[in-house]
Amino acid sequence: MELFSSLTPVFIAIICVLIGIILKSNRKSSKKGKSETQNKSESHPWVDDDLRDNTDLHVEEEGQEEDADGDWQGLDENIAHVSFSAERYSEGEMIKRSKEFYELLNKRRSVRFISDEPVPREVINNVIKAAGTSPSGAHTEPWTFVVVEDPEVKHRIREIIEEEEEINYKKRMGDRWVNDLKRLRTNWIKEYLDTAPYLILIFKQVYGMLPNGQKKTHYYNEISVSIACGILLAALQNVGLVTVTSTPLNCGPRLRVLLQRPTNEKLLLLLPVGYPGKDATVPDLTRKPLDDIMVVM
Amino acid sequence: MELFSSLTPVFIAIICVLIGIILKSNRKSSKKGKSETQNKSESHPWVDDDLRDNTDLHVEEEGQEEDADGDWQGLDENIAHVSFSAERYSEGEMIKRSKEFYELLNKRRSVRFISDEPVPREVINNVIKAAGTSPSGAHTEPWTFVVVEDPEVKHRIREIIEEEEEINYKKRMGDRWVNDLKRLRTNWIKEYLDTAPYLILIFKQVYGMLPNGQKKTHYYNEISVSIACGILLAALQNVGLVTVTSTPLNCGPRLRVLLQRPTNEKLLLLLPVGYPGKDATVPDLTRKPLDDIMVVM
Repeated sequence: MELFSSLTPVFIAIICVLIGIILKSNRKSSKKGKSETQNKSESHPWVDDDLRDNTDLHVEEEGQEEDADGDWQGLDENIAHVSFSAERYSEGEMIKRSKEFYELLNKRRSVRFISDEPVPREVINNVIKAAGTSPSGAHTEPWTFVVVEDPEVKHRIREIIEEEEEINYKKRMGDRWVNDLKRLRTNWIKEYLDTAPYLILIFKQVYGMLPNGQKKTHYYNEISVSIACGILLAALQNVGLVTVTSTPLNCGPRLRVLLQRPTNEKLLLLLPVGYPGKDATVPDLTRKPLDDIMVVM
Repeated sequence: MELFSSLTPVFIAIICVLIGIILKSNRKSSKKGKSETQNKSESHPWVDDDLRDNTDLHVEEEGQEEDADGDWQGLDENIAHVSFSAERYSEGEMIKRSKEFYELLNKRRSVRFISDEPVPREVINNVIKAAGTSPSGAHTEPWTFVVVEDPEVKHRIREIIEEEEEINYKKRMGDRWVNDLKRLRTNWIKEYLDTAPYLILIFKQVYGMLPNGQKKTHYYNEISVSIACGILLAALQNVGLVTVTSTPLNCGPRLRVLLQRPTNEKLLLLLPVGYPGKDATVPDLTRKPLDDIMVVM
C-alpha cells in the first residue's frame, strides 16, 4: 500500500493522459462527416466527391459550386453564343434511321476471342475522335484514351491483369470445392490482351489543374467518361470491330504507372479491340424487351 | 497523501475503465473498412459499393464475388455458347464509315432551346431500344428509361428542378455581388422542361432482387447506365433530335417519388428530347483535338 500510495501521482498522470486520448478520439469521430471525407481525399485525391451519391440526400455542400451545373454546357457566361441548326429528316426517315441504328447496335456482343489481324490505325483514330464528341460536366472533356499497340506493353498489361484475376478467382473459390482448376483457369486467362491489335485503356481525369496550380474537381467525370465510352462502343460496332467491356479489378494503379499516366487519372475501362477470332463464341444471352426497360407517362 | 493513497484502488479501477474504453474505440476504427460501409449501407442502401473507387487501393473485400467479374459478360457458367460472326467491311469502308460516324456525332451539341413540335413515339422507342443494347456488368441491364410526355407531369418536374436550381444558384452567388438577378435567373429557368415533347429520365438500378427476396448489388451500375446513355445520345443525334445532358442536382429523390420508381432506382440523367427551337443558340465551344485526348504506345 505504501508503494502504491507513492505511485499515486503517477496514476493521476496516467488518468489524465488516458482521458486526453479518449477526448481526442471522440473529437475525431464527432467531426466524422467532414474529416472522413478529408482523410479519404488524402488517399484518393478528389475521387470521393465525384463518386458521391446525390440522389438520396439533400446535399448541402459548399464547394459544389461553379462546375456542378445541372446542364452540361460550358459554364463561362462570357462565352459567345452562336446559332445552332441540326439536320432535319422527314418522320419516315427518322423512323428508318432509328430502326437501322438499333439493328446495327443490337448485333453488338462482348467478344473475348479477338483475332490478331491488323486494323488500320486511322479507324482507331476516328472512333476515338467520335468518343471525344461526348458531352461532359462543364465541358471538361475529362478523358484520356491510351491506345496500346506495342506487343511488349500489351503483354505486360496481360501479366498484371492475370495476376490480379488469379488472386480474385482463387479467393472467390475459397471455401468451395475446386473440382476442375483447369476449367476455372480459363476465367482468368485473357489471351485477347496479347492477340488484340489494340488495347484501349480509358482513364477518367478526376481533377484538373487551374493556371494557378490549384486542383479543380471535375464533377461527373465518371459519368462523362462512361458516356464517351458508350459512343466509342457504338463507333466500333459501326465499323465491324469487336471488344469486351472490362474493368480490371484492382489493377488500376499498376496499369496507370505502367502507362505513365499522371495521378489525376484513374483507369475506368479497358477495351481490347480487333476483328473477332475465327472461332469466336459468345454466351447465348438475350436482352430485356423494351417494355422491361421503358416506362411511359 | 493519506487520502490519495486510500484512493489508489479507485485510481487503478479508473485506469482500467479508461484503457477499456480506448481499446474498444480502437477496435471500432480498425474495423473501419467494414463497419463504415455497413453504416453507410443503412442510409444509402447498396449505393456506396457501387461508388467505391477501386483504382487506388488493392481492395480486398469479400462479398465482391460472383458479379464483379472483370469482363462484362454473362457470368453463369452453365449458359450455352454460340458461334459469333460480325459484319466485315473492307479497310476502305471501315475508314469511310468511321469518318462519317465521327462527322455525324461531331455536329452534336447540348441544346437548351427545344421546340414543342411533336416527335414520333416510334423514334423514341427505337432510340431507347438502341440504348438497351449497351453492355452491363454481369449483364444486369440495370436501367430504366422513363419517358414523360404528359404536360402536367413535365410541368411538375420543371417545378421541382427549378426550385432546387434557384436554391443552388442563390447559394452560389451568396457572398458575391448580384448586379443583375434577372440575367442570373435565366440560369435556373428551364423552359425546355415544358416545351420538349419528351423528357427521358434515366434511372440506374443500384440493386436487384433475387428470387429469395434478397438484395443483389449491381456492380458497375453507374458506369453501365452511363454507357447506355452514350449510345442513346448517339442514337438521338443520328435522327436529328437534340437534347441537353443534365444531372438535376438534389432532385433525384423527389423526381423518383413523382415518377413512382422503386427505391432501388436512382436518377442518373435527365434528357429533354425534341427538335431544336427555331432560334436555338449554343455556346461557341470547341473540342479538344485528338492529340490531347489520345496517347499511343
